[in-house]
Amino acid sequence: MTAHWTESHKNLMLFSGRAHPELGEAVAKELGYDLTPTTARDFANGEIFIRFEESVRGADCFVIQSHTQPLNKWLMEQLIMIDALKRGSAKRITAILPFYPYARQDKKHRGREPISARLVADLLVAAGADRIVSVDLHTDQIQGFFDGPVDHMHAMPILTDYIKNKYPLNNLCVVSPDAGRVKVAEKWANVFDGAPMAFVHKTRSVDVANEVTANRVVGDVEGKDCILLDDMIDTGGTIAGAVRVLKEAGAHSVVIACTHGVFSGPARERLSDCGAEEVITTDTLPQSTEGWKNLTVLSIAPLLAKTISEIFENGSVTTLFEGEA
Amino acid sequence: MTAHWTESHKNLMLFSGRAHPELGEAVAKELGYDLTPTTARDFANGEIFIRFEESVRGADCFVIQSHTQPLNKWLMEQLIMIDALKRGSAKRITAILPFYPYARQDKKHRGREPISARLVADLLVAAGADRIVSVDLHTDQIQGFFDGPVDHMHAMPILTDYIKNKYPLNNLCVVSPDAGRVKVAEKWANVFDGAPMAFVHKTRSVDVANEVTANRVVGDVEGKDCILLDDMIDTGGTIAGAVRVLKEAGAHSVVIACTHGVFSGPARERLSDCGAEEVITTDTLPQSTEGWKNLTVLSIAPLLAKTISEIFENGSVTTLFEGEA
Amino acid sequence: MTAHWTESHKNLMLFSGRAHPELGEAVAKELGYDLTPTTARDFANGEIFIRFEESVRGADCFVIQSHTQPLNKWLMEQLIMIDALKRGSAKRITAILPFYPYARQDKKHRGREPISARLVADLLVAAGADRIVSVDLHTDQIQGFFDGPVDHMHAMPILTDYIKNKYPLNNLCVVSPDAGRVKVAEKWANVFDGAPMAFVHKTRSVDVANEVTANRVVGDVEGKDCILLDDMIDTGGTIAGAVRVLKEAGAHSVVIACTHGVFSGPARERLSDCGAEEVITTDTLPQSTEGWKNLTVLSIAPLLAKTISEIFENGSVTTLFEGEA
Amino acid sequence: MTAHWTESHKNLMLFSGRAHPELGEAVAKELGYDLTPTTARDFANGEIFIRFEESVRGADCFVIQSHTQPLNKWLMEQLIMIDALKRGSAKRITAILPFYPYARQDKKHRGREPISARLVADLLVAAGADRIVSVDLHTDQIQGFFDGPVDHMHAMPILTDYIKNKYPLNNLCVVSPDAGRVKVAEKWANVFDGAPMAFVHKTRSVDVANEVTANRVVGDVEGKDCILLDDMIDTGGTIAGAVRVLKEAGAHSVVIACTHGVFSGPARERLSDCGAEEVITTDTLPQSTEGWKNLTVLSIAPLLAKTISEIFENGSVTTLFEGEA
Amino acid sequence: MTAHWTESHKNLMLFSGRAHPELGEAVAKELGYDLTPTTARDFANGEIFIRFEESVRGADCFVIQSHTQPLNKWLMEQLIMIDALKRGSAKRITAILPFYPYARQDKKHRGREPISARLVADLLVAAGADRIVSVDLHTDQIQGFFDGPVDHMHAMPILTDYIKNKYPLNNLCVVSPDAGRVKVAEKWANVFDGAPMAFVHKTRSVDVANEVTANRVVGDVEGKDCILLDDMIDTGGTIAGAVRVLKEAGAHSVVIACTHGVFSGPARERLSDCGAEEVITTDTLPQSTEGWKNLTVLSIAPLLAKTISEIFENGSVTTLFEGEA
Amino acid sequence: MTAHWTESHKNLMLFSGRAHPELGEAVAKELGYDLTPTTARDFANGEIFIRFEESVRGADCFVIQSHTQPLNKWLMEQLIMIDALKRGSAKRITAILPFYPYARQDKKHRGREPISARLVADLLVAAGADRIVSVDLHTDQIQGFFDGPVDHMHAMPILTDYIKNKYPLNNLCVVSPDAGRVKVAEKWANVFDGAPMAFVHKTRSVDVANEVTANRVVGDVEGKDCILLDDMIDTGGTIAGAVRVLKEAGAHSVVIACTHGVFSGPARERLSDCGAEEVITTDTLPQSTEGWKNLTVLSIAPLLAKTISEIFENGSVTTLFEGEA
Repeated sequence: MTAHWTESHKNLMLFSGRAHPELGEAVAKELGYDLTPTTARDFANGEIFIRFEESVRGADCFVIQSHTQPLNKWLMEQLIMIDALKRGSAKRITAILPFYPYARQDKKHRGREPISARLVADLLVAAGADRIVSVDLHTDQIQGFFDGPVDHMHAMPILTDYIKNKYPLNNLCVVSPDAGRVKVAEKWANVFDGAPMAFVHKTRSVDVANEVTANRVVGDVEGKDCILLDDMIDTGGTIAGAVRVLKEAGAHSVVIACTHGVFSGPARERLSDCGAEEVITTDTLPQSTEGWKNLTVLSIAPLLAKTISEIFENGSVTTLFEGEA
Repeated sequence: MTAHWTESHKNLMLFSGRAHPELGEAVAKELGYDLTPTTARDFANGEIFIRFEESVRGADCFVIQSHTQPLNKWLMEQLIMIDALKRGSAKRITAILPFYPYARQDKKHRGREPISARLVADLLVAAGADRIVSVDLHTDQIQGFFDGPVDHMHAMPILTDYIKNKYPLNNLCVVSPDAGRVKVAEKWANVFDGAPMAFVHKTRSVDVANEVTANRVVGDVEGKDCILLDDMIDTGGTIAGAVRVLKEAGAHSVVIACTHGVFSGPARERLSDCGAEEVITTDTLPQSTEGWKNLTVLSIAPLLAKTISEIFENGSVTTLFEGEA
Repeated sequence: MTAHWTESHKNLMLFSGRAHPELGEAVAKELGYDLTPTTARDFANGEIFIRFEESVRGADCFVIQSHTQPLNKWLMEQLIMIDALKRGSAKRITAILPFYPYARQDKKHRGREPISARLVADLLVAAGADRIVSVDLHTDQIQGFFDGPVDHMHAMPILTDYIKNKYPLNNLCVVSPDAGRVKVAEKWANVFDGAPMAFVHKTRSVDVANEVTANRVVGDVEGKDCILLDDMIDTGGTIAGAVRVLKEAGAHSVVIACTHGVFSGPARERLSDCGAEEVITTDTLPQSTEGWKNLTVLSIAPLLAKTISEIFENGSVTTLFEGEA
Repeated sequence: MTAHWTESHKNLMLFSGRAHPELGEAVAKELGYDLTPTTARDFANGEIFIRFEESVRGADCFVIQSHTQPLNKWLMEQLIMIDALKRGSAKRITAILPFYPYARQDKKHRGREPISARLVADLLVAAGADRIVSVDLHTDQIQGFFDGPVDHMHAMPILTDYIKNKYPLNNLCVVSPDAGRVKVAEKWANVFDGAPMAFVHKTRSVDVANEVTANRVVGDVEGKDCILLDDMIDTGGTIAGAVRVLKEAGAHSVVIACTHGVFSGPARERLSDCGAEEVITTDTLPQSTEGWKNLTVLSIAPLLAKTISEIFENGSVTTLFEGEA
Repeated sequence: MTAHWTESHKNLMLFSGRAHPELGEAVAKELGYDLTPTTARDFANGEIFIRFEESVRGADCFVIQSHTQPLNKWLMEQLIMIDALKRGSAKRITAILPFYPYARQDKKHRGREPISARLVADLLVAAGADRIVSVDLHTDQIQGFFDGPVDHMHAMPILTDYIKNKYPLNNLCVVSPDAGRVKVAEKWANVFDGAPMAFVHKTRSVDVANEVTANRVVGDVEGKDCILLDDMIDTGGTIAGAVRVLKEAGAHSVVIACTHGVFSGPARERLSDCGAEEVITTDTLPQSTEGWKNLTVLSIAPLLAKTISEIFENGSVTTLFEGEA
Repeated sequence: MTAHWTESHKNLMLFSGRAHPELGEAVAKELGYDLTPTTARDFANGEIFIRFEESVRGADCFVIQSHTQPLNKWLMEQLIMIDALKRGSAKRITAILPFYPYARQDKKHRGREPISARLVADLLVAAGADRIVSVDLHTDQIQGFFDGPVDHMHAMPILTDYIKNKYPLNNLCVVSPDAGRVKVAEKWANVFDGAPMAFVHKTRSVDVANEVTANRVVGDVEGKDCILLDDMIDTGGTIAGAVRVLKEAGAHSVVIACTHGVFSGPARERLSDCGAEEVITTDTLPQSTEGWKNLTVLSIAPLLAKTISEIFENGSVTTLFEGEA
């Protein structure tokens, strides 16, 4: 007699790294589950130790980590968690990286450089990840760095809904802070009923060779309420500079919107004082409004929770990110 | 006694697929070598047969193919050639794809789509390619789709040198035909001494939902001599439309420049009649000026030959593509 | 609380490439399902675009393609479909290739040749196929080219049942058209109650070196009703020649049977006029009896449908192909 | 209509190699199932032939083999069985190696040596094993040689329970036969209520260079009832020597315990006559008490059966091997 | 300053397993080198230990093993040697298997069987082999089981040269002992100036279902001097039976030729007494003429030595195996 | 004409991460080369950027990193450097990790834990490392975690030579601080002319369950000059405790020797004040004697330099680590 066994259920298990536990908990709460209790600590020399307190055999496991500072440590922690799940017989392992680390190093700008964004994908595969969930990758092509399913979620509807509710749309102009984001700005312009567009163009002086002497606004922003957008803001220098240039070009007001508020070093001061009415971001990274004059943080947890739920139940995530545009 | 053998030389061998033999021969001539004689033919049912007429053992092999129509056949031919080299004990196999096929499918635009540009990289690896050489990838990130060295060459210096020699620079404006190419246009603007920029923005009507009713020029082109650029031109519809819009916006003249002249279907007619003074391209794909009023074809062979030579001699290709900018 | 979810069903999804949609539909009809709606089209330069119209998450997916002309295009289409399924989170992907392309290139006949049949298996793996279904592989060993389950189905029972019903068995002789198919002919002879066998031997002249001057029948066919069989018929030259030689050797009649009717170029004319009473084949490739005098096409769809059903339900396919012999 | 199918059960299938069929049967009996009927035979030249008599499609398959002499043959048989399962569409394949072969070659002792224990793991992966179950690996690190889940079971509770029931604990001393097993001995000492420890130290003479002239007991064993333990006993030379040295050092009695009784060549005679009161082992390898004066064999089958059951039902094996210590 | 080092030589190193040391030595002698001294021994429980006595860093290594009984042991020994070379930093590792083990299991004859010939290729890859050399594979397709270069050598010229020198050619008939070897027989017939062919056909009785009652010669052998060939002879039953049937069909004489003389069990007696004038084989496996009436052994060492030399010097092996046909 | 090119040299290139630049420079100086100039910096959010200032095409590259705090950052930096070398066409990449990170997590101590030492090996492979060099791995088995050559160097001769020169040998006793290092201690005892041994045994109280109440010295240390050794010392708690226990047991003096002086947190204070005469270590990690009473640092650079030199010149490293023992 061969054995027959009735398989009546499958398990979803949710794990959170230590970088941003509030996000993991918020996602768990949205889903109505608990995070799986996990022992995680640092040895005296900085090595990370992980142990899960419940069996993960046969479970559909989701590992959330937020890649804030110290970013390399949190990446390594996530890789170790994935290794432990693989060796513990998890059925499927999904790595959730709301802010994909090293996304800016997605190509060789010049020779003898790494493509660190591809390396991150390779490390996740080496550790044992079967699939990836991320939000607003620096470039869409990063999806192709991973040899497996990538659910690439977009925070745009969260940000644009907020703006639509708060600001009048009839005088808007969507602005990209540099030439590389014009394509994304075009998508936002479509959401705002075909609003006009502009971008800031870094130009070299014609007098002095090889020196950037001026930023120029391409497009007409005079008297407009500008929505200045980016996928991520790090030290805030480029964005604060763009606000200044826009004002000089006659913009009536400027609101800044970005998915990933890295806000390193002088960012808080720069953005508080640059003249922008409001800085809108999400909590893909840990955020605090303390010390800010104009920061608004929207929660990414409902989007991640819906994505996890769809993956677990084998529904289609596509509807989540195509939006109504 | 263990054997000791003096290894006094290494071999470079150059192979060309059947899609565009003139390019292979031009590259060979630049290098001062011959293409390795290869039997290549189609069986009656379309299956391709390949056999090399010389031993490839231990050789450093370069396989050029041009991905023109029927593109899938030529890709398969290149894969079969690589398989034959692998099984014939080639030491190293470099696949040269001057025009990288399926480059436009470099991300999932929506759910349930392939990332065919990554698939092409995976197929090359599966067949046995150790490295890739390509020219002006649709997006730089495609470099990261291949798990190994990618030499990404740029035709920009070839195109811009030609323009500099022929046209006065003092009244130029660099124009991107859509929002996605603005970043590249900015690089060109820098080469042309910080020339001004513009781009064509597809916008939806505010009256009728979801309908594209107008293209708008963002930036000032009035009275300018416009350089309208793109990495590839397929049917020419977008580009011809952009010329029209530029003219309407008061441009003095328009010159079109692209690396990859695919020129499918109505392209020749459209571009001949669109009002552009000149259409400049390269021979990464087979080209003929027959029936054209204004087509100029520049040769990519010297660039490919120099790249091959540097790879073979282990020099640095980086200097080749950083240019003097 | 960890989540528990009742998994009450699994999905079978059936996809068809564009090469031979009638076959996909026939298989779907046998199974009582519909093909999944799929957008498939060619860009102007020949690149293929694929998008599935329904979510494939967690589904057991079967992708049928028929490798008729232009064969390389249809192979590439199937690879792209598989890539899209992999990236869309399909649970398991089975590639169905009723006629396995490049099956004749299953070894290096001489040095510096590819083994393209192995390459095809490697490409399927690279794209993401978990398993393969095929019918009457040119050689059984091709099963071993794929690192995973291969369900190798045989059309022999379909062909021999038809012959048994139509022709008297008592005067049959089973003939192989060349030395390489004698083993298969022996299996047929067993099905026809131990019928006698023969084969056509290509021989060189003893007078003129290296020249094939004559085909010789080995075995006694005088007065016999010959069943001349092959796995595939391409241009029909060998088979038509075999019919002639058999007639010269005194055969009473000849019926031709093959699984894969490629019928390239002059095949229709040759086989119509060669003196064979009937040419029997299946629809692993698209077939039309138009312009034929003696062609009979048997449907492979029921066999494929049963195979898919067994794989899906985890039954044993073995009984399907061992037959009653 | 897409197909939906209710998946109401999953199958556990148990397979045994020919090395030690009694173990496979004992495990099956514990589980309440039957071994799957399997044709296994040797061709005249020593090649092994395997065929399963029932379909394995979609089943959760466990392949038990005991690596007794001729060890390489039984390893190869297990690899062939796994290959057949993979090609027969098994859902998951677990290789059970109660005694892991080549475990002693788990590092390069000197240069130019293999790491055969890693090689065994690589061969299992190459054949298609998804996971491994083993008992008392020579070193725990061997778990890390396999890229996937390894369930490492411990026979210590079986052995120590037997000893606790039979011998008084108040005068025990736990002894390692060499420096490499002291760590394991410490675990046993903890189980026996913190019993004292000792080990036998091979030392070189100070007079004659490079010559081992004496074994020395480190620790105090005088008047003690010694439990001398090892993971495996091969020819018994080291262990018999250790018994002698312990007696010379004044031990009151010695009981030998090991998980894997290899007992090659002179082992039976040596261990019967060395003065040990009892030799306790398990049946991870085939055992017979015939010709022994003092051998006790404990069954490993219940432990293996429980492990299989937990893996199949996705329970946690951890509790099985952490014990109550 | 970066270091530059003149690399003035490369090393060929030759290793032999213990299965058939005479062959390794004969090959070394042909090449004019010595085998690298290797420690190889069996532990008491059958585990094999290997250590090379010289550094293998950077060397081009060739590992010869002959797969005679106990075949699984010798295969494992070769895998362990390859692992040791890989870990010892060999530059390139070529596995030489004059007689490829498990070659007969090159397909699934029925469901739920392994493809052990593919498994052997996979194991060689897992251990670290970069390339394979073998002689007269059971089927040519086995080349495609290995993902890398396979040099497939043919002993036919050695065997046919011997026959041409010894026997008159004018009355020859080339005979295959079964339907599966007719293709090879045809190649031999071409070498013998287009000699006639025949084969022995196993047929079922028409009276009693499913019972083989008779072997029938297909083709005319009356009065002929038959060359009965096979790639390997194991127990000799089929071949001895074929001799008998040929004699009954009026053959004048029969000479047997095979590459691999496995000669298991009753082979020597059967072949000595079957009426064949001579049995010709090679020493791909260890051979002795002792106790034989009619055995001739030709040396394969010169062919292997030439192959190794060509691989090492990156010459073309193709000329070696295409012969003059 | 095929190209022939005389390859007259090969390049050794040496790279150092930023964790411990003095070590990289010391190794470079020993070799007589320079480190390759490398741009390495942190972005504001902690992402690391790497660019090499010279071409690495075709070079034999060695990447040294010291895994001190913040350990995860330095590991990631080394992985990124390797990725950049891979993509820059390095011929061979050797990762040098004098102190292998996560070496203590070399097995699952309990269920649901990672094997982080294996993960580190997998990450190095994923990034592109061809080989590894390390010093005194926590366990020798870690060699087997990497699928390729590992040169495992030993600092023992450096440490024991120093001790032999400074201390009289006639009254030595070699002591392991716990049960797991007794095997290593035995090797040291052999180097010191068969000196006696001891170890410290952590034991549980018999009164209170599951509580460690006492450390016991197993072996006789009364009046001895103890050499207390370990592979690494982290916070120094175990070692300092061992010194205390040895003193209580009557030891005359204690010298501590370890390869990897991690010295986290309270280590400096503990070891300065524990009563040990001297603490001897190497600079596999950055060291400073500042604030220490008794620390001696020996240089590992000559050993690493010799190893690199042997690998580059394809000499044998084996002689370096077998020593004269």
